[in-house]
Parts: sequence; structure tokens; C-alpha cells
Amino acid sequence: MNLFDPLFRWPVITNLFTDEALLQSMLDFEAALARAELAAGIVPASAVSAITSKCRAELFDRNQLGKAAALAGNLAITLVKQLKSLVAAENKDAANFVHWGATSQDVIDTATILQLQRAFALIAKEIAHLSDSLATLANKHRATPIVGRTWMQHAVPTTLGFKFAASLDALNRHSERLRETEKRCLVLQFGGAVGTLAALGTRGQVVAKALSDELKLPQPQVPWHSHRDRIAEVATNLGLLTGTLGKIAHDIALHSQTEIDELREPAEEGRGGSSTMPHKQNPVACAATLSAAARVPGLVSTMLTAMLQEDERGLGNWHAEWETLPEIVTLSAGALHHLTDLIPHLEINSDRMLKNLELTNGLIYSEALTAALASKIGHSEARSRVDAATQQAAKEHHHLRTIIEQDKYLAHHLSTAELDQLFDPGHYTGMANVFIDQVLAQHQSQKSAHPKK
Amino acid sequence: MNLFDPLFRWPVITNLFTDEALLQSMLDFEAALARAELAAGIVPASAVSAITSKCRAELFDRNQLGKAAALAGNLAITLVKQLKSLVAAENKDAANFVHWGATSQDVIDTATILQLQRAFALIAKEIAHLSDSLATLANKHRATPIVGRTWMQHAVPTTLGFKFAASLDALNRHSERLRETEKRCLVLQFGGAVGTLAALGTRGQVVAKALSDELKLPQPQVPWHSHRDRIAEVATNLGLLTGTLGKIAHDIALHSQTEIDELREPAEEGRGGSSTMPHKQNPVACAATLSAAARVPGLVSTMLTAMLQEDERGLGNWHAEWETLPEIVTLSAGALHHLTDLIPHLEINSDRMLKNLELTNGLIYSEALTAALASKIGHSEARSRVDAATQQAAKEHHHLRTIIEQDKYLAHHLSTAELDQLFDPGHYTGMANVFIDQVLAQHQSQKSAHPKK
Amino acid sequence: MNLFDPLFRWPVITNLFTDEALLQSMLDFEAALARAELAAGIVPASAVSAITSKCRAELFDRNQLGKAAALAGNLAITLVKQLKSLVAAENKDAANFVHWGATSQDVIDTATILQLQRAFALIAKEIAHLSDSLATLANKHRATPIVGRTWMQHAVPTTLGFKFAASLDALNRHSERLRETEKRCLVLQFGGAVGTLAALGTRGQVVAKALSDELKLPQPQVPWHSHRDRIAEVATNLGLLTGTLGKIAHDIALHSQTEIDELREPAEEGRGGSSTMPHKQNPVACAATLSAAARVPGLVSTMLTAMLQEDERGLGNWHAEWETLPEIVTLSAGALHHLTDLIPHLEINSDRMLKNLELTNGLIYSEALTAALASKIGHSEARSRVDAATQQAAKEHHHLRTIIEQDKYLAHHLSTAELDQLFDPGHYTGMANVFIDQVLAQHQSQKSAHPKK
Amino acid sequence: MNLFDPLFRWPVITNLFTDEALLQSMLDFEAALARAELAAGIVPASAVSAITSKCRAELFDRNQLGKAAALAGNLAITLVKQLKSLVAAENKDAANFVHWGATSQDVIDTATILQLQRAFALIAKEIAHLSDSLATLANKHRATPIVGRTWMQHAVPTTLGFKFAASLDALNRHSERLRETEKRCLVLQFGGAVGTLAALGTRGQVVAKALSDELKLPQPQVPWHSHRDRIAEVATNLGLLTGTLGKIAHDIALHSQTEIDELREPAEEGRGGSSTMPHKQNPVACAATLSAAARVPGLVSTMLTAMLQEDERGLGNWHAEWETLPEIVTLSAGALHHLTDLIPHLEINSDRMLKNLELTNGLIYSEALTAALASKIGHSEARSRVDAATQQAAKEHHHLRTIIEQDKYLAHHLSTAELDQLFDPGHYTGMANVFIDQVLAQHQSQKSAHPKK
Repeated sequence: MNLFDPLFRWPVITNLFTDEALLQSMLDFEAALARAELAAGIVPASAVSAITSKCRAELFDRNQLGKAAALAGNLAITLVKQLKSLVAAENKDAANFVHWGATSQDVIDTATILQLQRAFALIAKEIAHLSDSLATLANKHRATPIVGRTWMQHAVPTTLGFKFAASLDALNRHSERLRETEKRCLVLQFGGAVGTLAALGTRGQVVAKALSDELKLPQPQVPWHSHRDRIAEVATNLGLLTGTLGKIAHDIALHSQTEIDELREPAEEGRGGSSTMPHKQNPVACAATLSAAARVPGLVSTMLTAMLQEDERGLGNWHAEWETLPEIVTLSAGALHHLTDLIPHLEINSDRMLKNLELTNGLIYSEALTAALASKIGHSEARSRVDAATQQAAKEHHHLRTIIEQDKYLAHHLSTAELDQLFDPGHYTGMANVFIDQVLAQHQSQKSAHPKK
Repeated sequence: MNLFDPLFRWPVITNLFTDEALLQSMLDFEAALARAELAAGIVPASAVSAITSKCRAELFDRNQLGKAAALAGNLAITLVKQLKSLVAAENKDAANFVHWGATSQDVIDTATILQLQRAFALIAKEIAHLSDSLATLANKHRATPIVGRTWMQHAVPTTLGFKFAASLDALNRHSERLRETEKRCLVLQFGGAVGTLAALGTRGQVVAKALSDELKLPQPQVPWHSHRDRIAEVATNLGLLTGTLGKIAHDIALHSQTEIDELREPAEEGRGGSSTMPHKQNPVACAATLSAAARVPGLVSTMLTAMLQEDERGLGNWHAEWETLPEIVTLSAGALHHLTDLIPHLEINSDRMLKNLELTNGLIYSEALTAALASKIGHSEARSRVDAATQQAAKEHHHLRTIIEQDKYLAHHLSTAELDQLFDPGHYTGMANVFIDQVLAQHQSQKSAHPKK
Repeated sequence: MNLFDPLFRWPVITNLFTDEALLQSMLDFEAALARAELAAGIVPASAVSAITSKCRAELFDRNQLGKAAALAGNLAITLVKQLKSLVAAENKDAANFVHWGATSQDVIDTATILQLQRAFALIAKEIAHLSDSLATLANKHRATPIVGRTWMQHAVPTTLGFKFAASLDALNRHSERLRETEKRCLVLQFGGAVGTLAALGTRGQVVAKALSDELKLPQPQVPWHSHRDRIAEVATNLGLLTGTLGKIAHDIALHSQTEIDELREPAEEGRGGSSTMPHKQNPVACAATLSAAARVPGLVSTMLTAMLQEDERGLGNWHAEWETLPEIVTLSAGALHHLTDLIPHLEINSDRMLKNLELTNGLIYSEALTAALASKIGHSEARSRVDAATQQAAKEHHHLRTIIEQDKYLAHHLSTAELDQLFDPGHYTGMANVFIDQVLAQHQSQKSAHPKK
Repeated sequence: MNLFDPLFRWPVITNLFTDEALLQSMLDFEAALARAELAAGIVPASAVSAITSKCRAELFDRNQLGKAAALAGNLAITLVKQLKSLVAAENKDAANFVHWGATSQDVIDTATILQLQRAFALIAKEIAHLSDSLATLANKHRATPIVGRTWMQHAVPTTLGFKFAASLDALNRHSERLRETEKRCLVLQFGGAVGTLAALGTRGQVVAKALSDELKLPQPQVPWHSHRDRIAEVATNLGLLTGTLGKIAHDIALHSQTEIDELREPAEEGRGGSSTMPHKQNPVACAATLSAAARVPGLVSTMLTAMLQEDERGLGNWHAEWETLPEIVTLSAGALHHLTDLIPHLEINSDRMLKNLELTNGLIYSEALTAALASKIGHSEARSRVDAATQQAAKEHHHLRTIIEQDKYLAHHLSTAELDQLFDPGHYTGMANVFIDQVLAQHQSQKSAHPKK
């Protein structure tokens, strides 16, 4: 564990991307390959058991592997060499069959895919939890009025439920994207030196099929050593997810500002305090999520740049993926986990939301007023009269309703009942409920179609 | 047209993203909105015809619009104002109904979507053309031997057809991705000030439906003003496409190097010459494509960073998209068009491919040799003997076959017929044909499922 | 002018980077080269006058240049060809001497440097103006209390002048950086085909010196065709500048939020209004600046990626610079110009600043209180008592001072005079004035050392 | 040590950025602060010794720190709390004085600066070593002919020494940049909660001065908590350095291609081999360097994006720096170390360079020929005759010299002696030696001005 992992990452995902986990995934490939080649009649059963018995990460010396990889340029060469030694110590012949017909990149890429597969399952479940929380809040707060803000200024009222629904809607798309990516991209890599499986002669196809079965990884149409769109798509789709999470965290942080104070991360012993200011309550989950949102875009651009891999297997750009992709996965999953934890416990101050709606002395209702008047006196007349009234209200520090009531012309067109409604914070919400229902319905339909195990 | 457009961009796509095209798309929205509100009983027919008659980009003063937008922070406000003036000059009442119930971002986002929709249709067709060319070459060159290279070094032989098939396979995935993006992301934006369509009261839903029909754009579950994953997905998926195109161009440029000379861009009057060196033939299409591949990743990262848009509609990050997204579309389409043009006319020098296979005095066949020997004398014995033979061959500058033939032990295990085969450049290609067939079959199946109109 | 230029860019800078300006800079190079070669005895005087008379951008057909550049991969080849035709029409012999000994990249790079040189002069002056405005405000508002905010939460009081001084301090560094860049990076490019000036034989050095004098551009130690750190440094240092401008704009936007309302962009006809909401006053200069801050980092990463240019002159990555660098210059200069315009007219609401200081019922003074008490009762006793008091104040919605006064122990240690001071918003500002003075002094010293002409 | 550290990083730099090293740097700050406050009469001597005795990283529980930091959002709060406990166990009063007057960011930022300072010293020395190697090779190979290549095509001859000199020239600039950065950016951070040092009352200045002396870090004009241009400049300047290193590695990799074979990484046991291909010799140092060059640009863009830190101390973007900046430092230093190791041992195959010069049957001398003829028959006549000759040579597969000699007109203008010279690979190198000398002189002058200790 690195010092910042608990803050920025989600332990169950971090654990999938430790050095040990990577080595074990690589060794899982080697063991599966041996079994697959047993099935294909290449490797004898005795060798397979000798090999698989040594495919355990704890048998390997990580420091030595790291140093040897620095010379070899590649972890697989080194690992295979150590594995051969371990196997040879027990069964000299068996050592000959280690890694048979495979190339370094087969091991490394497939190991990565295995790690990603596990990570995707956890991420999908976590998105499902976050989505459920948002669905609950969207429904619960469908009638909770809150200031709608545009360009960081008060615009017109909306509802808190509508805001949650819009976030849920984005998450519904992310779930769909990640399902597509999983299907298209998380496939076996197995091609030998230049992708043709030539070292296996006529038995390449049989071994590939058996290996795919062993690892429960679909076979691609053709090995993809230097076509990295699959790996890069994992990065871009997690990048999109992180963008949405960042947007949600950014909004929470804005709503948590002392002057706005509509939302807060829950207080908790040791959480969000200051080293010197007793009254501080810092939004820590937002900080971690925003940090991920600031970091992932640059990492995604690296993955896109690194797609230019030469010929059959590339130089340098492949290497550039090795640490970058795990960074993207662990940071995006960390942000996801932070918000999944936070959202159900978000402190929601609906009283303050009402107070903030009143901050502008009714000016926030000016569009509603214009719309109501427009149907009676035409839009441009309505707009110019409401403009004048809002300016007067702002200048004289009076409530807009007072100005309207004192203006004979306007008061004539708007009854008290109409004014009550126009200045009711919960009134001017248009299709908010319809939209919320549409989003909730889609969420339900996705849940039914793709139940989490 | 800007000076560099013809080099970096594809004219038919550039034309979709000119200032005029943007304005016309925005005006198309305004006209469609008026018609939709006629259907909803909000706008009288006379006003609709007055409005739609003015929704023509050539009636607007672009310079004035640009300057006013600099004050307003937004093109829509300014455009709507000019449109109202134009309409009012003809029909004062009609001017009241311009832009009714919509917000600036509804116009701008929907106009962008309309532009993207047209661009996607052209891009999909171009990918189809490029894919067909690759399919033809994959099939035609399935038996053309070429050096397989890894880490920019000779590895083992492969076939040129296999290389084309691997590129086609990636393009098959890009076609699929862009179809998914089109379906998920190219939808109507229509929500009014904060997304609730409140200004349209109870008629929001009817207008939204009619507008969606008018523009032939699907309705989303909820407006997506500040949830930009749709727009960002357009960027990421074009980013992935550009990565693949860059990989292809990078490989062509490498193969065009004077010393390798296996592939060349076609010579053409005025194409790729040098201002001072008569013998130069520069790979211009590769240069343009590589340039796009260098530029798009950074632009994609901007789109991801810009996803953090505040509350109901954001400040600054929305603005960051306006020029960035068209850059991504025009650059990626430009790269696509360059390669689509180039690939069918690529000069393929298969004689040189054969010569290059011989450059290492047979060392390129050492893996094949090891594999053949391994089945007879065990892998580790085979590897150590072949290692020794390759070192001797390299040191003494003899052909590897000579060394083998002079080594009694090895010569004993390998007959002349076997050696003929092992040193045949077309022999050691494993499953290359199977892989090619699988890719071609998938290409065909995608074509049938998604015929281009 | 493009539609978004007035919003995102500064016209005087945009004008330096138009197609016409680029062509003229390239032609300026060709004319200067002819004159330099006259001095070196290579080109006869008659040819020089024939050449220089045609080096006027308006004589060239931009559309044709663009299209020919798409074939040639390079604008210079095409331009030189047109220039030769124009010269030949008048003086056939003279045409032979056009572009003598230079390579395309000499023209294009030097033209870029000439454009940058002009841009740097304007940017330096604009930074000087912005710095002066910040200096004035730092001094004027050195005693204007405002909430200091950390992690987007109230922390302890500070002064508005201190905030301006911190921004000025950053700008002082940017001025210094850009001076260093100008000196190190804005130098002549002149090397011929591979940088050796071989085509000029023994006269290369003389021509290079004369050309440097003609263009008033320093000579580098060696041509830098494929070593792009100079060009990339222009990008990174403007990137740093844009980051600071974005930080300033971000803060202004935060302070302009309806609930905070401490700062505002000035109201102006047509500025920052909404298409539907009469009361909206959007921070347009902030939007444009934030947009630049979101875009420039990705563009900078492109420039860094593009540094990998092959051998003597690169393929593709050089091309990637052509539109990217002007984007960076015009966007960063646009942001600079927006803030330079805005800062002197920023509406400063110091009453509201005082009110916001009171929003937490005195909690903002808790650190001051702790510090004062710590010197009497020890820090940990002080902290735990102030913690308790702040919690009580928060819970009971009382002012912290009331709680303190009601607590016998605490009241015993703090006199009324001390409490008056501790709860005085202008009191707890530590070294703010010293820091302001240090920054102002450095600003003055830089101004004296580098007077703007 | 992580598994990939030895491949991608330089151990002495990695060691500066371990968790332990970070904690120790933070504790160094706390100890220095206590001593500084002793000097200022704030903290008693007994407390200082109690505090400093506990400021040893090995006394702290890293796991617990990591987990607590995840709650606190910040490592300093947690560390200070543990430090207080440790101190209190020995001296209860002393615990009160821990971290007195400082804020979390003071500790974290200054610790980072201390780490950077050590890294910069090592990097400067390593650049000096690399520069010396390049200088030696530039001088040694000033007469070694090699193909000059542009757009990845043969252009005209140059010398290997010239190529090394151009790289040295870039490194000279990098040395200068990093010295500037060190001076401008590696300064103390000490401002307390909002930068005013208010908690220290009137003694802030004295403590700041003493702390600056203790840590041997210059004082800034004003604390820079939320103005991150200093930190970001470290990133951009290392980004520029990495770009140059990537360019050098890219060139070596290109020259190492089997068909070109002019340069090679040295063979070494375990270095660059293949898991299956006995003849492979992969350029591992290039791979690692290119990987850094692919990764750093995206990380730099993150640092620029993260400059937008709110108000007095920011939320999320500050956090984004914590892991990103060490990545940039360790990756760029790793690339630097790889090349510093490699360059003196680079295998240089000058025979092959000569052979490659002959690959085009003399076409590479066509510019020289044109230049020589131009002085006799005018440039345009010369160019068109040489064009014809090169085309004939290419078509008929004859050497260009043969064509020339068989052409009466041309043979008439060029004597045998002239032709000998024109087709001499070492002849057409223009000012190469002058440029080399200029670069070497500047290198010497920088060495004298800035001797490494």
C-alpha cells in the first residue's frame, strides 16, 4: 500500500493492480497455457503439473524480477526465466514446455485483461449502487425546491430530485458503455512473436481455443499486439466516467460552500478537519474525486498517444501503458467509490435551499413572471416590463413581488392567486417530474436487463 | 477556407463546421422550434412563416455576431436578437415568438448535434471505403511474405495480408463504436433555462416531441446541459479512431524509409517533393495523418477536463468545447480521408520485402528453426544450439543455413527438405490465413448488418 | 475573423496569426534572404530588387497555396514556387535566386519566430498593464477585510489587497519567464536541407550572419530543425501564464456567485445577459478566460509530444505544431486581454465581504481565539476549549463571542478589549502588509529593470 | 520498490520520492519549524528537543497514516497528530508547540520543495554527464559521414558529430532552464491558514526568516499556496527535457532498425533479448526513454490544469499534484539516466553509415550537384538537368555519377576532380564544423560558469 492509496483509491481495486496481482495474473496465463497445450497434445501431463505447481507469485523474487526486467525491457522474459528455473529444479523436461509458443506480450496483455475483467465486475456493481442511491434521492427529492444555477449565477428554480435524476441518467449511459467495452475489449491476447502463432505450427488454433476456455476470455478475430484501441477504449470510457463523477463532486463542493451550505459531506471523527481551524469541515470525498477528475484526462491522452505502436509489436509506447492504465483504473474506481460512499450520507439542507431561493428578492421568478405575462401581453412587452421591474427591485432593494403589486398595469394582469403561484418556489418546475420518471424507468429497465450477480 | 485546411482536413467535413454552417444549424433549430410550437398551439402559423423565412444564415452579419458574442459570452443570445430584429421588420408580433421557451444552450448544443450527425454519416461511409480497401489488400496479399518486426527489429516472417487484416479488424471495431455513439449521443438538447422546460408550462412535453420529430433527432430521457459525457464520447471515440489511423500511417512511414522501401505513397505531380532535393519523395498523407494523431489526444483530454460543468449549465468549460470538438472531428476525418485515399494507391514493393527478409542471413528463421528442432531434441537443447548457431552466423557473416548444414548434429536432425521449408519466407506464417479469414468474415457480416445508404 | 475570435482572442494578436500574416512573414524571410545573399556576393542586386518587390502576401493566391500545400505537405514549397513564377515574369534570372540555399523549414520556422516576437512584445506590455492594475488594487485594498477560504470553506479572515498581491507576485514571475524565453528561444532558423548550410558552400556563415542582421533575430549556436525545445518552451510558458489567469478568473467567478456576491464583472449593455432571464449578469470575461485555461493544457501536451521529430527534420510532429502553437498564443493572449480589461473595472463589494465574514457567527475567528488563548493556557487546552465553544455556537446558533463571554473560564482570560480585537475582521491579518509590500517592491524593481517601450 | 521502477526510474531519484522520504521531509519541516520558533522566542528549548527527537519517519505507522489521511484528506493533519502523540508521551507541554502557526500545506509544499531540491542537484549532474558524453562524440565524429534524413527519407549527407552537437545544444538550454527554475521556484512555503501567518501575530516574519535559514530555502515574496506556477514550472521544464531525451532515443531506435543498423545499444547479458527469438537485440534504454516521453506530456497537462486552485488554498487540484509531480520527476530522471548510461556505450557502425550513403546510387548527392552546377549554368537550368539525371538514374538503376559522366553537357561543366569531390560523402557538410565548435564552446562556457560540486 502506498501512502496516498487509501485517499485516492479503492482498496479492492488497488489490490487487483499490485505487483503481486500482476505477477499472479501472468502466472495464471502460463499455467493455463500449459493446460491448453496439454489438451492440444503438445505438453505432457507431468510437465503441466510441474509447471502449474510453480505458478504462484509468492515463489518469485520481486526485487530480482524488477531488476532483470530493467535489462530485458520487459517483465515476461524475466518471469519466464525464473519460472523455468523453478520448474527445472523439479522436472528438467517440464521446463522446456514453459511459455511454449507464446510471446512476452501475450502474457503481459492477457494478464492485464484478466485484471481488468475483475476490476470491471467491481466497478459495474459500484456504479449500480451509486445509481440506486441517486434513484432513491431523485424520487425522494422530486419536490424539494432548489435554486437552478447557470454560469454560476442564480437562474430559475428547479428541484433537487431533478438534479439527481440528471446524474443518474449519465450513470445509466456509463453502465451501458462499460458493458460494451467489456464485451468488445476484454479478450484473449495470444499470437506468438508476430501474431501468427507460427511457433505452434498447425496446432495454433487448437491451443488458442483451449486457452480461451481455460481463462474464460473470448478469442479475438486476430491477435491485437500493436492495435491498442481495445486497451485505449478501457481508458477513454473510464475517463468519461470520471468526468461525470468529477461533475457531481464539483457540484457538491460548490453547494457546500459556507455561503451556500445546501449540501455537506457528513461529519465524522477525523474526517475533513483542519490542523488549525476548529470550525472547518472540509469536503474530503469531493477533494479526492476532483483530484481524479483532474488527473485522468492527461492519462487518457497518454493512452491515445501510445496507440502508435510500430509494426507487429511496438517500442516504448507499449511500455507507456503499463503504469498508465492501472493509474486510470484505480483513480477512476477510487472516485467512484468515494461518491458511492458519500451520496447516501450526503447531508441535505432543504431549509437552506429555500432560503437561497429568496436571496434575490424574487428576481429568480422573473422568467416565470415573463412567461406568465407573455401569454397575456406578448413576449416583448412582457420582457421589457419585467426587465424594468427587476431593475427597480434590485435598485430599491425591494422584493420583486412588491414592485409588481405596486405597478397598476402589471397588477391588473396578475391576480393574487397567480402571484402566489408565480412566487412559489415549487411551482416553476415544468417537466421536471416527467424527466425524473423517464430516467428512473430507464434505470429500472437496465437493472432488469443486466442484473448484478 | 484556412490555409492548412486542405492539408489537414477533409473538405466535405470542414464545410460542416464553418461559421456559416454553425449559424445555419442554429437557425434550423429556431425554425424547427417555431414549427414545433405551432403544432403545440403556442405560435400562430403567420409567425412561423415569418420566423422560418428569416432563418437563413446569409441574412446575418457574421462580424457583428462575433463581436456581440464577445460581450454576451454566447452566440445564441446574439443570434436570437438579430433574428428577432429581422422577423420584427416584417411581422412585429412574430418576433415575440422567436426562441420561445428555449435557452441559448438548447440552440447551440442541438446545432452541434446536427453538425455531428452529418459528419458521422460521412465518416461512417469513409471508414467503410477504407475497410473495403484493407479487406481487398488483406486477401490479395495473404501470401506476400514480409518481415515481421517487433521493437523496431526484425522478428520472424509474416505476411502483408495479415498486417492489413489486423488494421481492418481495428476499423471494424471503430465502425461499431461510432454506431453506438451515434445512437446514444446524437440526441436533441431542449430544456429551457435549467432543463425543466418550465417556461413552456404544461406544453413542454408536446413541444419537445414535435421538435424531436422536426429535427429527426431522438429525445433524451432528460436534458443534458451540464452532463457532457455524450459530447465527450464523440471526442473519445474519434480519438480512438485517430489512434488507429496514426498507427497505420506510422507503419507506412517506417516502411517507406529509404533503407526499407517496402511501401511508398504514390508519386504524383506536386506531391511530396522537396524544395531543394530532386530525389525526395515525402510521405505527405502519412505526415498529415501523423499530425492528427499527435494533436487529437490533447484535444480529447480537454474535452474530458471540460466535463466538469457547474450545476444546471456551466461556466467556461462549456465554452471550451466550442472550438475543440470541431477540431477533433475535422482532424480525425482529415486523417481518415488521407488514408482512405492513400491505401488503394499504396505502392507495394514485394520484391524488396523478400530482399529484406534475407538481410539477416537467415537469422529471421531462427525461431522457426528452434521450434522445428524442439520437437526433436527438446526446447532447451534446441534453443541453446540455435543460439550458438545464430551467434556464429552473425560473427562469421555466414548464412544461418550454412552454419546448420555444417553442424553435423543439427544437420542430422534436419533434412534438406525440412531446411528448404524452414528457410522459405512464406512458410512460417502459422494461423495467418485463419486470422485473415476471420477478420474478413466479420467485415462482411458488419457490412450486411449495416449497409451504407 | 472567425466567429469565436472576438470572444476567445485578442484582435491584435489574432491579426499576427492570420493566413496573410503567416504568408507575409514567410515572404519577409525570402526577401531578407535575398538581401543577405546580396551582401554575401551570391545574388546580384537586380535579382534582389526583383525578388523583394514580389514578397507581398497580397500578390499570392491563398486558395491555390492551400491546395498545393496539401499535395506538397508543406506551405513553403508551394509559396516558393509561386514566388519564383512571379519573379520570373519580371526577371527570369532573378527567379533562380529565390530561396537560395534555404530549406522549407528555414522559412516556416523563422516566419513563426517573427510572429512570436511580435506577439511577445504585445503580451509583455499587456502583462505590465495587468500587473499595474493588480498593484494598484493590492495597495488600495490592503485593509479591506475579506473571508479567507480554503478547500472552498471559510477559513480565517484575510485582506483583499493580499489576494491581489499574490496574483501580482505570480505575474511578476511570468514576466520574467517570458523574457527568458524570448532571449533563449526567439532566434533565427537557417540551416538548409539538413542544417549544415551545405548548399551555400563556404559562404553559409556570412549569409547566416547577414540574415540574422536583416531580420534582427539572434543566431543560434546551430540550426534547431528537429530540436523543438525552443518552440515547445513558448508553449509551456504561455501554458503557465494561462494557468495563473485561469486561477484568477476562477476566483472571480466564485466570488461572483449570487450567494457570495463580493466581486462582479461590470454591467454593460449587451454584456453577460441571458436570452430568457432578465436578472442574469453572467461573468463573460471569466468564461472566456476559464475556457482558455481548460484548453491550453491539452495543447501544451501536444507540443511536448510533438518534440519527437525524427533525424534532421521530422515527419508529422512538425506539422502538428503549425496550428497548435498559434492556438496556444492566441488563446493565452485572449485570456490575458480579458483579465487586463476586467481587473480595473471589477466591481468590488466590500460591504458584502464584511457581511460574509459574519456569516458563521464568529466561528471564522476561532483560530485567532485559539492563538490568543494558547499563549495563556497552552495550545492544546486552548484548542479543546475553543473546539467546544465553536461546537456549542454552531449547535445553539449563537455568536461565538457570546459563548466565550458566557464561559467564565474563557472570559477570565480574555478582556473585552481583547475580544473586541479578536472579533475585529481587520485584526487577524498577520504579515499581510509586509507581504504586499514585498510584492509591490519587486514589481517596481522589475519595472525599472525592464521598462516597456 | 515497485516492479517497474528499475526499468522506468533512476533509483537515487526514486528513493527521494518514497513514502518514507516524503514523511521525513515533512518531519524535517516540523523540526526546523520548532527550531525557528525557538529562535523567535516562541517555543522553549526543552520542547524543541522533544519535538526534533521524534521527527524521524521510522517512528510513524505508515499504514495508519495512509488510512487517517483518507479521512482527513491530507497527510499533514494526520502526521501532526501522530507527532503530537509521540512528543506528548515524553513531554506533554512540548506537544502543544508542534506545528505551531503552520498550516498543512506549509508542511506538504515545503517537503515537496526539499525533495525537488535534492532531485534537481542529481538531475543537473546527470545532464552534465550526458552533455560531456555528447560533447566528446560530437568532437570525435565531426568527420564521420552519415545520411542526413528528413521526413524519414534520405536527404543529403551530414556528419554524426553534427547530430550529437545538435543534441548537446538542446541539453545546454535544458541546463539553463533548470537553473532558472531552481532559483525561481524552489523556495519556502510558510504562510499559515490563509497565507498571512496571522497565528504567529507579530512574530511571523522572524519565524519565517529563521525557518528559511534552517531549511536553506529562500523566502518567497509572499506565500504561494494557491499560485502553483512554481510547481507547474518544475513540471513543464522537466517535460521539455523529456521531449529532448525522447527525440534522442527515437533517433537511436530508428538508426538501430535492422535495415539501417548504424547505431546499437550495447549487447549485455540479459539485456534486450527476446523470450523466443535468439537473434533479437532490443533497444531497451530507448524503450524506457520513449515510454517516459509518451507519458510525461499528459502528466504536464494535468499539472497545468491543476493550477486552478481556489482562493487561499484549493480543493482537489492541489491533491492532483501529489502523485503527478513525483511521476514527472522520476520518469524524466529515469529517461535521463538511461540515456546518460547509454550514450558513452552506444555502438557506432560507421561502415554501415557509409554503405547507407551509397544506397541511392548517388542520388543523395543531387543537391550538391545542383548547387555546384547552379554557379555555372544558373539554378533553374541546373535543377532541371539534375532532376532529369536523377530520374534517369533511378529508372535505369545506374549510379548518378555514371549518368552525369555520360551526359556530354554536364560532363563538360564538371571535371573528374569536381565529381570526385561532389560524390565524396564527407564533402558536402557546409558549416557543420563551425556549428559543432559553437556548441562545444557554449558547453565549455556553461561548465565554467556553473561548475558541478
